[in-house]
Amino acid sequence: MPLSPEQQAEIDTLRASPRSTLRTVSEGMERHLYTAHPVLDHGFVRVVDYMGDDAAITQAARVSYGKGTRSVQNDEGLIRYLMRHWHSTPFEMCEVKLHVKLPVFVARQWIRHRTANVNEYSARYSILDREFYIPAPEHVAAQSEVNNQGRGDTLQGDEAARVLEILKGDSMRAYDHYEQMISQEGQQGLARELARMNLPANIYTQWYWKVDLHNLFHFLRLRADAHAQYEIRVYADALCEIVKDWVPFAYKAFEDYRLGAVSLSAQMVDCLKRMLNGEAVTEENCGMSKREWREFKGVLE
Amino acid sequence: MPLSPEQQAEIDTLRASPRSTLRTVSEGMERHLYTAHPVLDHGFVRVVDYMGDDAAITQAARVSYGKGTRSVQNDEGLIRYLMRHWHSTPFEMCEVKLHVKLPVFVARQWIRHRTANVNEYSARYSILDREFYIPAPEHVAAQSEVNNQGRGDTLQGDEAARVLEILKGDSMRAYDHYEQMISQEGQQGLARELARMNLPANIYTQWYWKVDLHNLFHFLRLRADAHAQYEIRVYADALCEIVKDWVPFAYKAFEDYRLGAVSLSAQMVDCLKRMLNGEAVTEENCGMSKREWREFKGVLE
Amino acid sequence: MPLSPEQQAEIDTLRASPRSTLRTVSEGMERHLYTAHPVLDHGFVRVVDYMGDDAAITQAARVSYGKGTRSVQNDEGLIRYLMRHWHSTPFEMCEVKLHVKLPVFVARQWIRHRTANVNEYSARYSILDREFYIPAPEHVAAQSEVNNQGRGDTLQGDEAARVLEILKGDSMRAYDHYEQMISQEGQQGLARELARMNLPANIYTQWYWKVDLHNLFHFLRLRADAHAQYEIRVYADALCEIVKDWVPFAYKAFEDYRLGAVSLSAQMVDCLKRMLNGEAVTEENCGMSKREWREFKGVLE
Amino acid sequence: MPLSPEQQAEIDTLRASPRSTLRTVSEGMERHLYTAHPVLDHGFVRVVDYMGDDAAITQAARVSYGKGTRSVQNDEGLIRYLMRHWHSTPFEMCEVKLHVKLPVFVARQWIRHRTANVNEYSARYSILDREFYIPAPEHVAAQSEVNNQGRGDTLQGDEAARVLEILKGDSMRAYDHYEQMISQEGQQGLARELARMNLPANIYTQWYWKVDLHNLFHFLRLRADAHAQYEIRVYADALCEIVKDWVPFAYKAFEDYRLGAVSLSAQMVDCLKRMLNGEAVTEENCGMSKREWREFKGVLE
Repeated sequence: MPLSPEQQAEIDTLRASPRSTLRTVSEGMERHLYTAHPVLDHGFVRVVDYMGDDAAITQAARVSYGKGTRSVQNDEGLIRYLMRHWHSTPFEMCEVKLHVKLPVFVARQWIRHRTANVNEYSARYSILDREFYIPAPEHVAAQSEVNNQGRGDTLQGDEAARVLEILKGDSMRAYDHYEQMISQEGQQGLARELARMNLPANIYTQWYWKVDLHNLFHFLRLRADAHAQYEIRVYADALCEIVKDWVPFAYKAFEDYRLGAVSLSAQMVDCLKRMLNGEAVTEENCGMSKREWREFKGVLE
Repeated sequence: MPLSPEQQAEIDTLRASPRSTLRTVSEGMERHLYTAHPVLDHGFVRVVDYMGDDAAITQAARVSYGKGTRSVQNDEGLIRYLMRHWHSTPFEMCEVKLHVKLPVFVARQWIRHRTANVNEYSARYSILDREFYIPAPEHVAAQSEVNNQGRGDTLQGDEAARVLEILKGDSMRAYDHYEQMISQEGQQGLARELARMNLPANIYTQWYWKVDLHNLFHFLRLRADAHAQYEIRVYADALCEIVKDWVPFAYKAFEDYRLGAVSLSAQMVDCLKRMLNGEAVTEENCGMSKREWREFKGVLE
Repeated sequence: MPLSPEQQAEIDTLRASPRSTLRTVSEGMERHLYTAHPVLDHGFVRVVDYMGDDAAITQAARVSYGKGTRSVQNDEGLIRYLMRHWHSTPFEMCEVKLHVKLPVFVARQWIRHRTANVNEYSARYSILDREFYIPAPEHVAAQSEVNNQGRGDTLQGDEAARVLEILKGDSMRAYDHYEQMISQEGQQGLARELARMNLPANIYTQWYWKVDLHNLFHFLRLRADAHAQYEIRVYADALCEIVKDWVPFAYKAFEDYRLGAVSLSAQMVDCLKRMLNGEAVTEENCGMSKREWREFKGVLE
Repeated sequence: MPLSPEQQAEIDTLRASPRSTLRTVSEGMERHLYTAHPVLDHGFVRVVDYMGDDAAITQAARVSYGKGTRSVQNDEGLIRYLMRHWHSTPFEMCEVKLHVKLPVFVARQWIRHRTANVNEYSARYSILDREFYIPAPEHVAAQSEVNNQGRGDTLQGDEAARVLEILKGDSMRAYDHYEQMISQEGQQGLARELARMNLPANIYTQWYWKVDLHNLFHFLRLRADAHAQYEIRVYADALCEIVKDWVPFAYKAFEDYRLGAVSLSAQMVDCLKRMLNGEAVTEENCGMSKREWREFKGVLE
């Protein structure tokens, strides 16, 4: 359970107090505000604030004064055009601020996206909670044999049991020792900035993460992808659901031109034309490496 | 007059339609929303959207769930502490989106601040208006004799008149020729992307500019400074008034620790200690260059 | 002629003094160092410094200690893999610093790429030269009838002559007036920071521009594209030739997977599969907008 | 010992092969190239590549063609002026690429500086080494009683011994379990991307980190500061020694105007003037908070 009763009470209070604003409002996003969407065993994402909606994208693109006279249909067409042709600045005009609770090893991947604002819970200043990510049995998987940085089949039987036992046991022991070291009962107590080094990477941390829509789409394209590690992909999936309600036109365009799109190399385009002309293109005569040919076949199946 | 009646009507409509939101609201900022604050002879700044308030800064610093139990007084103290100790990420949690109309030579300085999002009116796509910045007579100034990149006394009499005549005449002629070249009456009409090159740097452009509060403060520190060119400083001054109403605690801290603060070099601190010990420190025995000594004296007067 | 004899002499001196270094050296890039490649009528690009080569990309990707034991063939394969799968950080490990002379209206497009370092010649501090871009007759083109932000056919006869006459006449007059206003003979002389506003956007400026290879490729993908304005595209083309000599493997991968590649939307991929199955897909049954269908047909022809 | 014999041999080979270049060379930096400077018990920093020197800073500031006619003395004066007046872009024209080996909890602080390029050793792809940071006894310190995010006195006797025993024991056990889980002997072997989560934050990682001089100075100002955690400060200190040899003028200016400088608030400047006028300014009549007064007194002592 990611939220304590006190936390849930705070969220309920915030959701109970609508206020008046002259700003653009996204009704779809208002429904998400403050609500914690659970991810993994102790994590969550929740929207703390947002700026803009679909109309804000087209408004910026047109540098217009107000809502303008364009119809909603025009708005969708323009958004699709902007996405298709890799315009980035209009999408930067929407912004979202999230509160995320996530395991440290996920946070370490996430932070590589540098074009965002972050305030992380400080383990120099504060004491971390006893919360560790322990994978559900169906996600305890073997090293992939084809992909050096991926996972393969789910582990079975004794091996899976041993893994879970190790992860749980080491987490609890590390936390017990963390508490012992910082304790000031009968001793001085180790500095928190030192004691934290004993904690493993499956401990949960949390942060405020603020990002514009363009950079969020970039994050989602990489992290909602099948090649992303499962434990970060579930956060990306949860965010996709939120973005879909926030800016439905932009999200649909993102699905069509990014998530569901494919990029074909010059060689692939050439092969394609030959195939459409009825030529039998094979691995031997395609002019691509074995790996690229396999990727090309993957696109067409 | 920067706004046409149609534009003012649109702004009035936007201001007439309050909506309900669960987000944080800054009452001081709501009063500014959409209103165009005039700057120079045809320019303006107006707030199109914003995210966050003073409380959002401390909330992010604490990575807290809700408004927390801290008092407002604590909030101000924490904000001042964060500003004094150069914490940047909590201030990044507030964001503002502005619509700015400004001369091109001001835009060229402004854009050097790269950590912001910009959508500028496109002169490839659209036709620019016949609006040029002509300085008020009291701002037609001579080259500074002490500062290679500044201005000195106001020009007087014939010389001032000649300057104004040149600026007005060349602007109008350039725009007349711009219109002639793109005209499609009786001719094909030059491409807009080419015709625009005939327009001088005092023509007005406009853009949407979105920036977080930390980077906005950095912009204001440099551009609301006495050494900044007058024509960009007036924009910075107008923004200072807006920010003061948006996040009053943060703005006060910014005034005390940035705008009104001074930075003393290691040598200056050393001299200061000697002076407080009663020693007569002079340009000769201060160990600084002539220029640094002058700057040091400037601080203490 | 962009370079004065004094400037050429300086460049010759720099090229005449090889020094010893332990750093990675790109022989292809050494040949370009300092040489000014002419662009447009008065502009140029020249390499002032660079860091890294093809091997530096793979070395960073492997976080290895030295050149490692991998063969050159492996290096090319890895670079192609990294490019194909949108890895960005290894390409960021190469850096180039350029000196560019370019018209102001080109500089205004260029600067929108924010992820670079820029030092521009200051017209507050210094006096600009009397150098203006005047298009060659074959580049004086009409507004495009299909593309709102593009150009169409070359203008002919009287209309072309009028355009060139206007551009030349207004440039010279604006510069004459600029000189008159700042002159201190018999008058105080207007501040340079003010006088510059009279100069049109075809005047040349210059800057140092430093960028990493990943962001340079992003710039080149957008600006070496057929939809980019001719006057910036020629700079991108000149840079492509330089990059090709600097990092030949990375450049080839960039050509295959970016410049020559196409991105197909989810709908386009679907149509493609239907076509390869022998189905007759038409504008009517393709499920795309008219515009997308036209773009799709463009890819396959 | 951070380097294996093989690694040292690679470094020796790289240092044994000087090559010819036309680029700017910093003799002081050439002496550092590739050499691993030890930090903490298993860490190091080593320079992999660099671009520019002191002259490159002034060259960019002047946007000049070559070395220009200015004397070296002028260069130092200009560099000091640029630093004192917060010019940033000329310092961005120098770049350095480092290979750093560091504990994960240090890496997590370090990565918060976003304006740099990073390639980290991937624990999804590769197996981490059995190397953990264990503090030297004199750095095993108690929680500070005045600073919530700092450390106080060194722990003594049994308590210190217990801490070291815990850190060593838990590190070894976690690594043993890591090896057991990924082992493919007699079992499938857990995916590396999962097994890594069992490793504590004192394990060493390594990365290539590339940054420009302006952003490096910003990093050093915060991390070579007395308030920074000891374990990152020693890296900053090692970098200071390197930068001092690379760009001696810029580093001296950084020492005088940043590291050794102080920032005084508007209130502090006011108090100072009163004190220099002979007035007795006390905590009661100073108009500052208790904390600010303490900081002010700290500056003057």
